[in-house]
Amino acid sequence: MKKIDEGKIDKLARLAVIKGVNLQKGQNLLITAPIEALPLVRKIAEHSYKVGANIVTPLFSDDQITLSRFKYAQDESFDQATNWLYDGIGQAFDNNTCRMAIAAEDPLLLAKINPDKVSRANKATNKAYKPARTRITEFKINWNIISWPGKAWAKRVFPDLPEDEAVIKLADAIFDASRASVDDPISAWDDHNKSLKIKTDWLNDKNFESLIYKGPGTDLKIGLASGHEWMGGASLAQNGVMCNPNIPSEEVFTTPHALKVDGQVSSTKPLSYQGTLIDEIKVTFKEGKIIQANASTGEEVLQKVLNSDEGASRIGEVALVPDSSPISQSGIIFYNTLFDENAASHIALGQCYTKCFKDKNLSSEDIKERGGNSSMIHIDWMIGSKHIDIDGIDVNGNTTPVFRQGEWCD
Amino acid sequence: MKKIDEGKIDKLARLAVIKGVNLQKGQNLLITAPIEALPLVRKIAEHSYKVGANIVTPLFSDDQITLSRFKYAQDESFDQATNWLYDGIGQAFDNNTCRMAIAAEDPLLLAKINPDKVSRANKATNKAYKPARTRITEFKINWNIISWPGKAWAKRVFPDLPEDEAVIKLADAIFDASRASVDDPISAWDDHNKSLKIKTDWLNDKNFESLIYKGPGTDLKIGLASGHEWMGGASLAQNGVMCNPNIPSEEVFTTPHALKVDGQVSSTKPLSYQGTLIDEIKVTFKEGKIIQANASTGEEVLQKVLNSDEGASRIGEVALVPDSSPISQSGIIFYNTLFDENAASHIALGQCYTKCFKDKNLSSEDIKERGGNSSMIHIDWMIGSKHIDIDGIDVNGNTTPVFRQGEWCD
Repeated sequence: MKKIDEGKIDKLARLAVIKGVNLQKGQNLLITAPIEALPLVRKIAEHSYKVGANIVTPLFSDDQITLSRFKYAQDESFDQATNWLYDGIGQAFDNNTCRMAIAAEDPLLLAKINPDKVSRANKATNKAYKPARTRITEFKINWNIISWPGKAWAKRVFPDLPEDEAVIKLADAIFDASRASVDDPISAWDDHNKSLKIKTDWLNDKNFESLIYKGPGTDLKIGLASGHEWMGGASLAQNGVMCNPNIPSEEVFTTPHALKVDGQVSSTKPLSYQGTLIDEIKVTFKEGKIIQANASTGEEVLQKVLNSDEGASRIGEVALVPDSSPISQSGIIFYNTLFDENAASHIALGQCYTKCFKDKNLSSEDIKERGGNSSMIHIDWMIGSKHIDIDGIDVNGNTTPVFRQGEWCD
Repeated sequence: MKKIDEGKIDKLARLAVIKGVNLQKGQNLLITAPIEALPLVRKIAEHSYKVGANIVTPLFSDDQITLSRFKYAQDESFDQATNWLYDGIGQAFDNNTCRMAIAAEDPLLLAKINPDKVSRANKATNKAYKPARTRITEFKINWNIISWPGKAWAKRVFPDLPEDEAVIKLADAIFDASRASVDDPISAWDDHNKSLKIKTDWLNDKNFESLIYKGPGTDLKIGLASGHEWMGGASLAQNGVMCNPNIPSEEVFTTPHALKVDGQVSSTKPLSYQGTLIDEIKVTFKEGKIIQANASTGEEVLQKVLNSDEGASRIGEVALVPDSSPISQSGIIFYNTLFDENAASHIALGQCYTKCFKDKNLSSEDIKERGGNSSMIHIDWMIGSKHIDIDGIDVNGNTTPVFRQGEWCD
């Protein structure tokens, strides 16, 4: 049986430690990963210790064990969560433990499970995880997400290939998209971060009040939060560590105004949400709130997501990605947000990134007043394609073209 | 390649859930296991959910990642522990989460690592884990340990076999010793628990003040704690659940008096302690304390263990196992305490089982006053064989034969 290239596994691991989470001497590292990703986790542990990690703690998951719960557990189970574990993780973050997540999940793992059970379990987990997750969204510590070609995921992306070939093809797509296949991934990421910074500097200089999206099924105005800041690529965590939270990452993003989104928008790629596929989403916003939502697949799950809490039907992120992004050009639909969000401009339902403000010392009241949304969820959702034009409207009402046919104008 | 019998994996998993931890409807379950044991953990999760578990949380470990730390981490690492995780586990136990551990470790994993690093890391972990471990030693919740034939462990037990054959042979030895190979493991354990109860009832009726051990290299008097109770097999946890903490278990055991142990004793089997083998131990006790200790292998680690804390050089458990125990008769040296302790009578350095008193409402001061030892460690150590005779001395100074040539007298 063919195997995944070990040299590239090592390169991705080293990239994730040095440029991704940018582990500092004396930091602890918490990794969440499926057991399938063990070869990558071993390499990450090795590189982490080599740069001075104190203790690397992997928390491994297994899809079959996850499924067992949904198949066999009593009904009361689905309103429960392992609070002790999430409380512990929050405590770790408070003590400057950095965080790495390895995404490899089967996008359809829970597709055949009763959506009510899935929704209740997600809600209970989201609630238990909120204190720890808030430290991530507020960027208290350095963190990073990378991917691993899980078998079920690979078969979903390449359904016509035998499993081992699908895994190798997905592995290569992940290595390429992560810029881990080149001779020197570290300097490739330095260059990439520089070009993203040119875009964020331009957008921050323009300081648009809103963006107008036009294309097939889309006529949307997104107001931006007062004092918003565009970010992308490497970011400075509150603990002073410059890290690259997402590998890959092709986006620049900021915080929209939770009350100033109006019009219609259609999704341009399927969304895989915790084991269910939601496709061909069409929603109508009024004063920031989604007042109508439909989907050709997964509409029931979508409706439950939107009803998770007050902020779940408003948006917390707006991100720009050109259609010429390498991930888009690969032509692969990954059914995984980390990749698909980097193939297209997108928005996210739910919690805003509180770091996307020029003033870094805002209270949660300040953030709310400026338009930052608050929710237990944060779900990215693709609305860009080569058919979409985007204009920026500045404080004087002047219009500047930002994207034409899916590409940057400047 | 030959594989481990799936039917027996299923039987062992069901036995562990129903007779081992005796999971109650609505309980959460925490499992620690090496990734190698995934097939068994999956079956345990399934059986746990089928009897009403709320959430099963496996915490998986990997020997290579553990080794990475000892090979590559900076020196400061070895005085650190993941307190957040152990605190969380304590919180879980306080909320009636039951506990299962799957032992599969390579007994020589850390044999080539500097013993100072190993000792410091163990000390830091023992300290961080103490609050959670105390809930186990005080038997606040139902718990259970079973085993899985790890590859490195199997090669250690059967060094002359190819790896896959060694694993299958160790698997069969584990299934047999655990009484999981029979048609109905549940009723086999009911019978076994009954015969252990006959022994504990007799010993509790006799209420010996001390035991005298005589044999080659051994002439030892072990005083028993005031008000001690002999236990064995199924035990009642403080949460009201009757469980079998150890599978296998052939021993009856109680709490000795920490100040009343005198004489010489020689180990009869090698001891595997957290990755190091300690063999041919000879120690001298005076008034309960080890005043001299030697070993032909691993003496340095033994000395560090004895110096862990004040209670580490005194004993906290005395256990009787006949030489005719099926594990002893298998002739296999497992290099794993869970098995080897059930092949021979043994004592344990360190922490006593506070449950081994007739009065179940003792404070820690009461327990100390009665002779119960206190320590961060609890390490079982084999001193029985077919050459050892044991007498019991009662309150009037009368002598009753307990073991002759390694077998029960009655």
